[in-house]
Amino acid sequence: VTAFVPTYDLPSVNRQILLGRRPDGIPLEADFMRREASIPEIAHGQFLVRNLYLSVDPAQRGWASDVSNYSTAVQIGDVMRALAVGAIVDSKNPAFPAGAYVYGWFGWQDYAAASANDVLTAFAAPVAPLSAYAGLFGINGLTADISLSRYGHVAPGDTVLVSTAAGAVGSLVCQLAKAAGAYVVGLTGSDAKCRKLLDVYGLDRALNYHVPDLDEGIAAAAPEGVNLFFDSTGGPVLDMVLRRMAVAGRLIQCGTASIASWSPLPLGPRNEREILTRRLSWNGFVVFDHLSEFNAAISRLQHRMAAGQLHFEEHILQDFGQSAGALELLYSGRNEGKLLVWTG
Amino acid sequence: VTAFVPTYDLPSVNRQILLGRRPDGIPLEADFMRREASIPEIAHGQFLVRNLYLSVDPAQRGWASDVSNYSTAVQIGDVMRALAVGAIVDSKNPAFPAGAYVYGWFGWQDYAAASANDVLTAFAAPVAPLSAYAGLFGINGLTADISLSRYGHVAPGDTVLVSTAAGAVGSLVCQLAKAAGAYVVGLTGSDAKCRKLLDVYGLDRALNYHVPDLDEGIAAAAPEGVNLFFDSTGGPVLDMVLRRMAVAGRLIQCGTASIASWSPLPLGPRNEREILTRRLSWNGFVVFDHLSEFNAAISRLQHRMAAGQLHFEEHILQDFGQSAGALELLYSGRNEGKLLVWTG
Repeated sequence: VTAFVPTYDLPSVNRQILLGRRPDGIPLEADFMRREASIPEIAHGQFLVRNLYLSVDPAQRGWASDVSNYSTAVQIGDVMRALAVGAIVDSKNPAFPAGAYVYGWFGWQDYAAASANDVLTAFAAPVAPLSAYAGLFGINGLTADISLSRYGHVAPGDTVLVSTAAGAVGSLVCQLAKAAGAYVVGLTGSDAKCRKLLDVYGLDRALNYHVPDLDEGIAAAAPEGVNLFFDSTGGPVLDMVLRRMAVAGRLIQCGTASIASWSPLPLGPRNEREILTRRLSWNGFVVFDHLSEFNAAISRLQHRMAAGQLHFEEHILQDFGQSAGALELLYSGRNEGKLLVWTG
Repeated sequence: VTAFVPTYDLPSVNRQILLGRRPDGIPLEADFMRREASIPEIAHGQFLVRNLYLSVDPAQRGWASDVSNYSTAVQIGDVMRALAVGAIVDSKNPAFPAGAYVYGWFGWQDYAAASANDVLTAFAAPVAPLSAYAGLFGINGLTADISLSRYGHVAPGDTVLVSTAAGAVGSLVCQLAKAAGAYVVGLTGSDAKCRKLLDVYGLDRALNYHVPDLDEGIAAAAPEGVNLFFDSTGGPVLDMVLRRMAVAGRLIQCGTASIASWSPLPLGPRNEREILTRRLSWNGFVVFDHLSEFNAAISRLQHRMAAGQLHFEEHILQDFGQSAGALELLYSGRNEGKLLVWTG
């Protein structure tokens, strides 16, 4: 038992959040239903996970949608697909013994009958609070570290622009780019968050994307052009930044949060001429393509954490029932850090 | 003197094609003016090039435009910027002696007072007809070879789609991709060119992009998605293909020929979601960024030519005055192969 493991209940029912209907854009609380099921039986090869931290991630909007995506849609009436960190409390798989901790595809529920394929990372002895395994050492940190390693090519003196700089992924991208010697400019949704980017996260410049002269702000912040744009939002801000990229600039497309619905297909300025004349390299990134790199990336992140180089904030909802409204909160931008639900 | 060197005149005046006004979209014959100037004097370090083959290239549309581009605009009244192959007939630079041949930035004119910086490739003894140095061993072959080497990642079994498959670059991309083991699908503008792609260039499939059901044709030709799209056209065809890309597909953006004008900025469907969910890598390519790779690429192309692996067609206009209308001809698609003007 380490100092990082919380105490938790083992409820006698399995509280679940189900997808109740297909969301129209951002999933709202009313799109979900709550059910109490029995604790699942585990088959040979399976193990029973008691979820402790449910993860709330922008990608869940896509999973709840029936528009073609990089993964199949969650079916109506199914437990909402989600990542979670939990403790193994029963096991019929010697590789995943009771007492170990796991991070994986366990859904918005108290208990999951899980198989090896559902696990992203497993750890016998946490070296940080368990919640960190859903964020800093979970898909947020992994996305930041692996996407920069693979597509960022950040060199000292580069100007790096991050579209959701105060977010769970963006704040880590900023810090990793800064550590690589870049001049880091962050976009965020309020003046208070701008101040935080400068004072807490150590960015060189922060811009509130709600200002009317954002394009001029970007131009002034990157007078020689943007060498790397890490973008989770898409939409008009992306169109602006494309036209402020430096020659040979890189874009990492990690989300499209600013577009509430893709049906009907929204229009925008044609961008192929910018890609050609600026010789850009625009890369879509989904962290789940890189499972084999997870352990190495977590090691790098733990090393940086131990050296005090990473600031990472968590916003932990304390009531299981708040899961259903958590994506609404996330897309409002009113959360302060990685959004999780504590179920213990 | 080799069999590959033609005889040519040394006229006593320097015929020139000047940009007469800013073109509205595709440069028309009427956008140019003709002038007869005196033969230029060469300064210390310069050499006098007698142009023999003037190159006609889609990129000239951009050079003639005043919309920001990867190079500065040609000024009104200046000799039209163009690549050409010529013979050095006088020299004040020992590295470029009289009698050698050069390919470079010599403009649409009979004579250029050139400096080392104007030269892309120099060759004392041609191993192919001089015209080849403007196409197969010029920017067309170099673009095909270097862009595929750098961004194509073509593996056996890949489906490669080429948007201007019968063009000077596209036909070489098709043949190089085929040699790498790909299933190669070409788009072109007529049924006659489709037949030629199959019968002469050895493609696996050819589609006329004027048909109303092009999207279905692409889907049928690439049932498992397009792994590499080599695109010189942009526009609606690009939008279609983006939605038929395989996961982890690559796009090489080498031109935007289908868009006649970028002012006002044309609209299209937003594409960032395709880039993200299909994890695409979309790369702008301008061959002039890769000067240091030219000699190696020419060696590879010469090796393939000698092995009989490359079919390359040239369409050579025989009258200097035809230069002014050559871009109109090129954009009409009525040329049959790499378009050049013989000035000898």
